[in-house]
Amino acid sequence: MSALRFELLATDGAARRGRLTTPHGVVDTPAFMPVGTVGAVKSLSPDDVRQAGAQIVLGNTYHLLLRPGHELVRELGGLHRFMGWDGPILTDSGGFQVFSLAKLRKLSEEGVEFRSPIDGALHFLSPERAIEIQGALGSDIVHPLDECLAYPATWAETERSLALTLRWAQRSQAAHRATAGGGALFGIVQGGSYPDLRARAVAETVALGLAGYAIGGMAVGEPKPIMRDLTEAVAGALPVDQPRYLMGVGKPEDLVESVARGVDMFDCVLPTRNARNGQCFTPDGPLTLKQARFVRDPAPLQDGCPCYACRRFSRAYLRHLFMVDELLIYRLLSLHNLHFFLGLMSTMRAAITAGTFAAFRARFFDRYVVAPTGEPSATEEGAAGTPK
Amino acid sequence: MSALRFELLATDGAARRGRLTTPHGVVDTPAFMPVGTVGAVKSLSPDDVRQAGAQIVLGNTYHLLLRPGHELVRELGGLHRFMGWDGPILTDSGGFQVFSLAKLRKLSEEGVEFRSPIDGALHFLSPERAIEIQGALGSDIVHPLDECLAYPATWAETERSLALTLRWAQRSQAAHRATAGGGALFGIVQGGSYPDLRARAVAETVALGLAGYAIGGMAVGEPKPIMRDLTEAVAGALPVDQPRYLMGVGKPEDLVESVARGVDMFDCVLPTRNARNGQCFTPDGPLTLKQARFVRDPAPLQDGCPCYACRRFSRAYLRHLFMVDELLIYRLLSLHNLHFFLGLMSTMRAAITAGTFAAFRARFFDRYVVAPTGEPSATEEGAAGTPK
Repeated sequence: MSALRFELLATDGAARRGRLTTPHGVVDTPAFMPVGTVGAVKSLSPDDVRQAGAQIVLGNTYHLLLRPGHELVRELGGLHRFMGWDGPILTDSGGFQVFSLAKLRKLSEEGVEFRSPIDGALHFLSPERAIEIQGALGSDIVHPLDECLAYPATWAETERSLALTLRWAQRSQAAHRATAGGGALFGIVQGGSYPDLRARAVAETVALGLAGYAIGGMAVGEPKPIMRDLTEAVAGALPVDQPRYLMGVGKPEDLVESVARGVDMFDCVLPTRNARNGQCFTPDGPLTLKQARFVRDPAPLQDGCPCYACRRFSRAYLRHLFMVDELLIYRLLSLHNLHFFLGLMSTMRAAITAGTFAAFRARFFDRYVVAPTGEPSATEEGAAGTPK
Repeated sequence: MSALRFELLATDGAARRGRLTTPHGVVDTPAFMPVGTVGAVKSLSPDDVRQAGAQIVLGNTYHLLLRPGHELVRELGGLHRFMGWDGPILTDSGGFQVFSLAKLRKLSEEGVEFRSPIDGALHFLSPERAIEIQGALGSDIVHPLDECLAYPATWAETERSLALTLRWAQRSQAAHRATAGGGALFGIVQGGSYPDLRARAVAETVALGLAGYAIGGMAVGEPKPIMRDLTEAVAGALPVDQPRYLMGVGKPEDLVESVARGVDMFDCVLPTRNARNGQCFTPDGPLTLKQARFVRDPAPLQDGCPCYACRRFSRAYLRHLFMVDELLIYRLLSLHNLHFFLGLMSTMRAAITAGTFAAFRARFFDRYVVAPTGEPSATEEGAAGTPK
């Protein structure tokens, strides 16, 4: 099954410490993947991303299809060379964005037709075309086109959607097999908030025998307890010897809770998107930089943090940059937040290896003040073209 | 005269190779100073600025007075520590911005009253207060408040304005003498486009015996030949053993022509501001990145350029980032443009030392295609708060 290898190195309860080997290098799991929306992790250079500790980034098929177009990326040597990132790249299928961002969608058995919100151009995404596009990008880990329903949806709607996703998965696999040298194909487990449909999704997707399994349709508006229970049930039912990827998740507390339930891989736009809103993640919880209490604060964002922003600047200075909308702040806060997320993953990996994950988890929640709810969804970067 | 030392190391025609020693380090002249508008060279970190080859940056008194306020900067250890730049800092007096950006100005013998365009707050800038603010910032090279007239102005208007500037220069010097441990005070030569007034300005300003001399009121709308002739006349009349600083200049061709006329120091927002408009400077002239001819161009912005943008990315990728308004592009283009400007200064210094400046200048203009006129003025960054 292509050039992907997964080794399970240690477990601690349901938590897993593993290693994923790709043609572009090794990824230690549990892993967090920064999101490189349009061929860049917003405001950061590849060196910034690497230096923050990232081993793999995610590329958005939808955004790259619209601009600059996958054929142009192919012509320029693929996404790795185009964006100057020589590590592994995972791509989504573009489906999630079509269903959440595009206009005038027309869904059929064949695929989905949509208009670009940028120039109104008509596009068509089918299982075959999603595989072709990801092949042009040169992705290391490829995903099949799926339908992602919003929460809530009825059982009947969810069942109809799941059946379509499963038929599309078969077509994706056939298209992928017909392509020589493509990246490894993951499956995506849908099924909404219904445990019976999730169980069926696991069974039928795993039956295809893919390189790894993503859990889709989470963090789409469902209450946190439902997300936690579904994650636990789905992760627990997936093959032990293959990687499990929870798509679009999440906040630091979600990462800890999902690792505790056996998830190996994550992606989320929070580190960079919240940076653009002036939010900084710390072991005590998120901190809103514009608050007046930071006006004359000479301390770094986070004591002891090794990131450039914390080594060189005070909260007072960074708050000032944010208040005057100086571009530098978006890079500095994104750098810090990425350090925080990737450092959290590293700490969790060490705890699993040491067999102390439960103690780590308790300590984390003793200290970390979870942000109040009511924030916007964290599963998608702002539309391309808007800095915030 | 404070802790500033200037050594003239070599001359080649009117061009001068010198070295300025400040409490925060050495500046090789002719020098270009990136503009750190609100306490940051827009979109760049201090490491970026240093790595591009800058030895000194300019801080804008006006912008820092409005936000975050000079008392806050003083409380946090001064501008060097606040912005994380340990090299020399030169500050302007804030006058230029008051006359070009602020609202509801009321000019009197005493000083100038204006309202902040940000929050409408009333501010007052006098010669004494400008010195006090720059002292709070901890600037290495300080400037007196002056009045900067737009072009054109009548002889009578210009004479009245120059007389005020000269009276303010005396008050500034008195205030500066009363302050222990402030930075070195430069004089500013005004006098508009009238050679006789410029001559008087030189004589009366130099008579004060200051640490160096700025040439103000240039690049404010006057035709290029007038600017060139005035620069030559003023620079030629200034003391040989002191640094000469041409404020707010300029384009690459202006730097070459002004060095040829004996100028030692420059500042300009072009490298960063034009980066935000997608313009890239090269030895062949400026290049507009959004042009369709770069869509599939795999070449770097500039062959052989050692900057990060040129070492790692293609024109096609950088154009893509600009077209999708990805924040990373502003840093990458600013980095490149700063490398270009600072590299140009370095080349000129070497040519003066080698006695080959005339040949360098001829070669430069053989290759460099000067940008068409009709561009916006280059003397001021966009108002704080707007990324472009």
